[in-house]
Amino acid sequence: MRTKTPQLADRILEAATRLFARQRFHEVRMDDIATEADVSKGTLYSYFHDKDELYLALLARGSDSLVAALQRAVEQADSARGKLIAFVQAVVTFFDDEPHLFDLVQVVEVLRRSEEFPWQEARDVAVQLVHQVFDEGRRRGEFRVADPELGALLLLGGLRSVLRFGKRPRPRRLAERVVESILGGVAE
Amino acid sequence: MRTKTPQLADRILEAATRLFARQRFHEVRMDDIATEADVSKGTLYSYFHDKDELYLALLARGSDSLVAALQRAVEQADSARGKLIAFVQAVVTFFDDEPHLFDLVQVVEVLRRSEEFPWQEARDVAVQLVHQVFDEGRRRGEFRVADPELGALLLLGGLRSVLRFGKRPRPRRLAERVVESILGGVAE
Repeated sequence: MRTKTPQLADRILEAATRLFARQRFHEVRMDDIATEADVSKGTLYSYFHDKDELYLALLARGSDSLVAALQRAVEQADSARGKLIAFVQAVVTFFDDEPHLFDLVQVVEVLRRSEEFPWQEARDVAVQLVHQVFDEGRRRGEFRVADPELGALLLLGGLRSVLRFGKRPRPRRLAERVVESILGGVAE
Repeated sequence: MRTKTPQLADRILEAATRLFARQRFHEVRMDDIATEADVSKGTLYSYFHDKDELYLALLARGSDSLVAALQRAVEQADSARGKLIAFVQAVVTFFDDEPHLFDLVQVVEVLRRSEEFPWQEARDVAVQLVHQVFDEGRRRGEFRVADPELGALLLLGGLRSVLRFGKRPRPRRLAERVVESILGGVAE
């Protein structure tokens, strides 16, 4: 039997993400995933025992990789404002590179809401990082967010709308403009 | 044969909305909808020929009623700022009264994205009303939104996050605080 490789696992997960985002869960068959990934059914089943396992694996993989990208982003910048901009830029880059994952998360957010689901960690870490940076902004005297909970909801929700409905190609300095608009307001 | 009534159509659509929001489209059967609405299958089919017709009808009905509520809201207030607050309050009231419709819209936004779908009108009217009120704010000298497109995305997206993830019961003066935060910024 062939050795399993992370590259092949990735290829299967990417193919499955495309299918789950386009079709309803019950319409996607393991056969379709094998075809889309260009692997045999035997190979597919040696990686994932069933569709549920595959579905959870791809959300968990996406969640881990977004968490890593967000943590790198905030470490990279010095000022609190710079950290927020790097954070927003990381979210834009991540989902623009993975549009099917973006769709999938939006669907599972509703369909899997009552159970624990593997995307939850990405959401929790994102909210927590934004709160940390707001706090750092206050300690450094850069800015003070009076209601951090509302501030984080408006930043993350606004960003989601920009990703889903905003112009493409993305305007120049998009991350900076989102952060300035949320911190300083959209009105003059 | 019994005369069809709008009340019974409403009861069927409300039952169907609850089921579509909880389960995937293919899992919901016309039988389940009849049971949930407490009507016979014959009655159900006299109102809607199949599941697709019912599904489109409930999105169209929700879209029409949100559009009417938003238009009333902006007519009600005098100042541009007051109109924005009334608009946000109308969205909060509408979706807090129809949580299943809120979930359903989030799912169809992804699954039906490529086709025309009956929720599109509500989205278009909402965006258009926000642009109108931004414009009115400028003409009246109340406030000036430099980038109305980004401003509308941040307002509507931020509001969606507040609805989905924000505290319940809703904090006092929520609509006002959302509008002030978007126009004037979350930071001091």
